[in-house]
Amino acid sequence: MQSWISQGRLIKAPENFIGPAGVRAVFAEAKRGRRDFIRGAFAAALAGGAATQAAAQGEGDPAILKLPAHSTGLGQPVVTDGYGRPSKYEGNVQRRPSPGLTQTSQASVSFAPLQSLFGIVTPSGLHFERHHQGWWDIDPAQHRFMVNGMVKTPKVFTMDEVMRLPSVSRFCFIECGANTGMEWGNVAVPTVQYSHGMLSCSEFTGVPLITLLEMAGADLKGGKFVLAEGADGSSMTRTIPMSLVTSGEVLVAYGQNGEMLRPENGYPLRLVVPGVQGVSWVKYLRRVEVGDQPWGAKDEAVHYIDLMPDGTHRQYTSIQECKSVITTPSGGQVLLEKGFYNINGLAWSGRGKIKKVDVSVDGGRNWRAARLETPVLDKCLTRFSLDWVWDGKPAIVQSRATDDTGHVQPSSRQLREVRGTRSIYHNNAVQSWLVQENGEVKNVQLS
Amino acid sequence: MQSWISQGRLIKAPENFIGPAGVRAVFAEAKRGRRDFIRGAFAAALAGGAATQAAAQGEGDPAILKLPAHSTGLGQPVVTDGYGRPSKYEGNVQRRPSPGLTQTSQASVSFAPLQSLFGIVTPSGLHFERHHQGWWDIDPAQHRFMVNGMVKTPKVFTMDEVMRLPSVSRFCFIECGANTGMEWGNVAVPTVQYSHGMLSCSEFTGVPLITLLEMAGADLKGGKFVLAEGADGSSMTRTIPMSLVTSGEVLVAYGQNGEMLRPENGYPLRLVVPGVQGVSWVKYLRRVEVGDQPWGAKDEAVHYIDLMPDGTHRQYTSIQECKSVITTPSGGQVLLEKGFYNINGLAWSGRGKIKKVDVSVDGGRNWRAARLETPVLDKCLTRFSLDWVWDGKPAIVQSRATDDTGHVQPSSRQLREVRGTRSIYHNNAVQSWLVQENGEVKNVQLS
Repeated sequence: MQSWISQGRLIKAPENFIGPAGVRAVFAEAKRGRRDFIRGAFAAALAGGAATQAAAQGEGDPAILKLPAHSTGLGQPVVTDGYGRPSKYEGNVQRRPSPGLTQTSQASVSFAPLQSLFGIVTPSGLHFERHHQGWWDIDPAQHRFMVNGMVKTPKVFTMDEVMRLPSVSRFCFIECGANTGMEWGNVAVPTVQYSHGMLSCSEFTGVPLITLLEMAGADLKGGKFVLAEGADGSSMTRTIPMSLVTSGEVLVAYGQNGEMLRPENGYPLRLVVPGVQGVSWVKYLRRVEVGDQPWGAKDEAVHYIDLMPDGTHRQYTSIQECKSVITTPSGGQVLLEKGFYNINGLAWSGRGKIKKVDVSVDGGRNWRAARLETPVLDKCLTRFSLDWVWDGKPAIVQSRATDDTGHVQPSSRQLREVRGTRSIYHNNAVQSWLVQENGEVKNVQLS
Repeated sequence: MQSWISQGRLIKAPENFIGPAGVRAVFAEAKRGRRDFIRGAFAAALAGGAATQAAAQGEGDPAILKLPAHSTGLGQPVVTDGYGRPSKYEGNVQRRPSPGLTQTSQASVSFAPLQSLFGIVTPSGLHFERHHQGWWDIDPAQHRFMVNGMVKTPKVFTMDEVMRLPSVSRFCFIECGANTGMEWGNVAVPTVQYSHGMLSCSEFTGVPLITLLEMAGADLKGGKFVLAEGADGSSMTRTIPMSLVTSGEVLVAYGQNGEMLRPENGYPLRLVVPGVQGVSWVKYLRRVEVGDQPWGAKDEAVHYIDLMPDGTHRQYTSIQECKSVITTPSGGQVLLEKGFYNINGLAWSGRGKIKKVDVSVDGGRNWRAARLETPVLDKCLTRFSLDWVWDGKPAIVQSRATDDTGHVQPSSRQLREVRGTRSIYHNNAVQSWLVQENGEVKNVQLS
């Protein structure tokens, strides 16, 4: 019998289902009386279904047929909570801030626990946060959304007016432009939560921005750009090319994963700009202005720009390029023994669909094609996986994604040859995790 | 300007963003000073972005440029809650029990608020509940899963052992076989939450049951059925045809919408049987036994059977047939005025994908094809929508789904001709909502 740290739990034993000590106990039990255990379980099954679990929980001793409380008692009633919560055993699965990363906790970040997630949907309660002046719970009855600038008739909408219009729902990822930013400076942060956790994926619902512009009679020829403005104190403003708007992709969204947006994610209204870095998905959206040139606002002139090796800055590099990361095994996790593991992780591209993901377990010398979980959607996370038998020796695991435009995720070296090492933003390099002989996994940077 | 009750809010005014009185105020404001308002907003925009919202919230009077608190103050910090919650303004969006429907609240049901949901994902906190002896939060370190019966080597798995195996994630719906059961008896329950709310849709993650059976050396030729058994006090047992298992569709699942299952939905392990009624998705799954005939257990001999007009019972009618329902407008909602509405709702089939949905606004005399939201997935909810201009006269709105096997959702009359009126289960008839002249929507049964 093989045991393993639970998928995505961090290294500390109390946070595993069965910690290292428990694993040793289960091993000992298996050597001692696995056959007796099975025999006992069978006897229990014959005696009546309810006894089976008792046998299972008697852990090897068929004489112990004490039924667990949940097999004999009356459980909790329906609607203990009209809006349910996770199990008390899942308390470790949290979004987390990075202590010391920012000077205030209102202009700050929390990271999604990617190591603990399955599939592609990020539960809204674990969605990463990025606030520029803290978050608010804005009264939707008071909130207004304005369209102005190069339009025939400026319009102001209530939430009800927005929500009665034809809407679109789509699954897409959102990634902060600064995600994986620490790796530029060779700071190998310990876990995938901190290295890649400014990434989430939801089903968003909203009205195509083009619909609202058309209602205002926007000049779609002369108007080459729109400015999106948030209602919070940071006055976040971002320029969006009109071509993204006329394609119908940009949404004025109110829904996320089936319900209204969460306050931390812009309730009651945010912009959704599939494939583009998160800062452009303006939260608490109150205004869109149509114009004929980029605005060069603070958050596009001073922040969210790429410092290049020659000292110049790249500006308006908004699209999140093809990228992937292995989430299991990843930094901070531990493999408790040799044997079979299901390597898996996430791949995404701001330019389209993921076409393939290759995985290496030897630091990039050999690559094997991973399985892609369906559906593979445009500008959405795609879960990949690959069978792996770990022989107990050190191994460097990596994933490399290719999107349907042919873009191949670069190695750190390739990326640095072009971009240098002084950027903060738009790091889409291959991530390397070192599985050490003791099973502990750590973040390593290959030179 | 047109205003409308918020999509999916129930009829009571405090639960709308802007209630009927608010709508009148907004109308008055619009007549009084819409141009001044826009002018004021423009001036504010020129004066600086932050003032725009103030103009919007000054509601028509450009002299009132009082900025709302959220545009001037410092908001809440990150990770106010490591696991976030919805806005305080969304307190009305809850799953709800039906008072008096069951004799105890442990053997009972809560209904998902379909009228308030968007897209296809059901937030896990709003997933419907159906318990047979209450719900439990079972310690995953203690939980075991056994495979026995017609197998070479009976196996007992820990959660860690299950979770290290290759896994699959897929979106699919789950519907209780008794959903819409009250309609058989001409009881027109008031809202879609109560008529169709034993329906939810999630991204489930787990190990194909066939993998676990193969590990135990199951007899896949002689073994025509499996029995799934839950660990809670109800000892729920259900027979599943082996053909569903060998197709790879049946999962031993631990993940739901990216995180671990919720306690009310079977934490830490439940069976996922896409397309099949919810009772077979055994929660707190502790055992699967391979056998050569159906078990005829209590919950398949006495419950979840269909009483036919000739007095016989249909048994093992597990597949949830093609069905749809309009969620907006639906019973209990109110249209506050004439004009444009985005009729929308959900369609699903336990046999495959939704091929089309037709919508009628005149009680079934004329039908128009609705838009289907993508992706359209196998045995999954599909959101449909259709533009509609309401002329203020009584209207009966209906939806009728067709799946890719060609099955067309029947009218109540058609269904009753075959099935009579004394069933509880498997009612997939077309649902009719009457929009009355005063805008109030109610559940009606067409003879």
